[in-house]
Amino acid sequence: MHPVPVLFYGVPQGCSFGSIVALEWLGQPYRLCRIEMLDHPWPAAYAAINPLNQTPALLLEEGEALSESLAILLNIGTRGIARGLGFYQGTPEADRLNEVLAYLNSDFFAAFGPLWAAYEMQDADEATRAVLQRIGNAGVAKALAHVEALLGRRPWLAGAQRTVADAYFAGVARWAEYFPQFDLALDYPNLRHHLDRLRADPAVQFAMAIEAGEPATSSGRCLGHVMLDALHEQRARLGREGVPA
Amino acid sequence: MHPVPVLFYGVPQGCSFGSIVALEWLGQPYRLCRIEMLDHPWPAAYAAINPLNQTPALLLEEGEALSESLAILLNIGTRGIARGLGFYQGTPEADRLNEVLAYLNSDFFAAFGPLWAAYEMQDADEATRAVLQRIGNAGVAKALAHVEALLGRRPWLAGAQRTVADAYFAGVARWAEYFPQFDLALDYPNLRHHLDRLRADPAVQFAMAIEAGEPATSSGRCLGHVMLDALHEQRARLGREGVPA
Repeated sequence: MHPVPVLFYGVPQGCSFGSIVALEWLGQPYRLCRIEMLDHPWPAAYAAINPLNQTPALLLEEGEALSESLAILLNIGTRGIARGLGFYQGTPEADRLNEVLAYLNSDFFAAFGPLWAAYEMQDADEATRAVLQRIGNAGVAKALAHVEALLGRRPWLAGAQRTVADAYFAGVARWAEYFPQFDLALDYPNLRHHLDRLRADPAVQFAMAIEAGEPATSSGRCLGHVMLDALHEQRARLGREGVPA
Repeated sequence: MHPVPVLFYGVPQGCSFGSIVALEWLGQPYRLCRIEMLDHPWPAAYAAINPLNQTPALLLEEGEALSESLAILLNIGTRGIARGLGFYQGTPEADRLNEVLAYLNSDFFAAFGPLWAAYEMQDADEATRAVLQRIGNAGVAKALAHVEALLGRRPWLAGAQRTVADAYFAGVARWAEYFPQFDLALDYPNLRHHLDRLRADPAVQFAMAIEAGEPATSSGRCLGHVMLDALHEQRARLGREGVPA
């Protein structure tokens, strides 16, 4: 039905970046579908993939769409246990991966919310933006310090090996570079080093080129893009156009 | 070493509530350790359990501490596959559980952040609180509407059966009752019904009594409370007093 999974990724600066990286590391065939997040309204067909109108979403081989970065990354991690991207259920390693993924997906991600809100409210009153910036700065500093300490104890975020948590990190930690009030090299050197190491990875470079719309060489098995409209028509013929399960 | 897991739960109104409910449903022996979240500073010994000073945390039989609700609930769900609390890795049911848990643990949880911040800033200027309330009201309304729609399609949050996602929901959805601007019965009847159904469950009633410090009857296998200081001394003797792995 869908011979290979299709990842819906959002630009600019989507957290879906991490799911592209994880799929590249997995090395199994997949396709991409691009969502311009700043377009309003979003294409109506996407609501059948994810009614929250968020990316990423992963259209699975059986025709079901899976949303939420954490769920997608655990799905990819399970496919990639032999490559070390995830772990068998019920092991201490799986607990540790779930723990760090949950942290990055909740507190770390959410810490940036007030700063993005202030950024998008350029025409709001100064007092409103100041409130958001104060809360955002405190939250992000706390989140960065936590990951900094974690990376002082482990070479990779979930422990001894590179996992889907590091893929996700590559997509969300870069947000700190967007705001000049955070000096990663000075205040968070472990985090800076980890981000630099990831950025040298061909999978991360591929994801950056894909986001930028530049020529991109897959070191995994990306089979190229599909268009949302074509996908939607195909799903409608197969009776899959409704709301997700 | 630790013959049974110890759950650290926070009061008042902790999201750790859901982990108590899940442990009750699991029906395997466990103990509880209480953290008064409004005490400042938190007991120093707790930083060795979770350096973020957040609850819940689950001290595992092997002596490692696991933090993050989502990781704890997936650990309990895995122990409870035979009871239907979780699913085998690599199945569509596991994907669906991860998806709804991730949503509740990220967007749903975070939506309340601005409202709690405004609540705690009773002495802040009116403009600051108004900004937070406006953002919080919009975010919570969106989150409630998403779960309302989900519960229109499924009897339980992850599908056909009661799972750890419903346990977590019992702890975080009640927050909407705290703010009179949300009328659950009128605007979110599926959500209201689901919360009422959960509240009639002996495990949820046990968790409510535990939080309130009232006599509580475990329908699971809660073996009672342990004190943090005693636990810390025991761990120190065993060389476990340092930062977590």
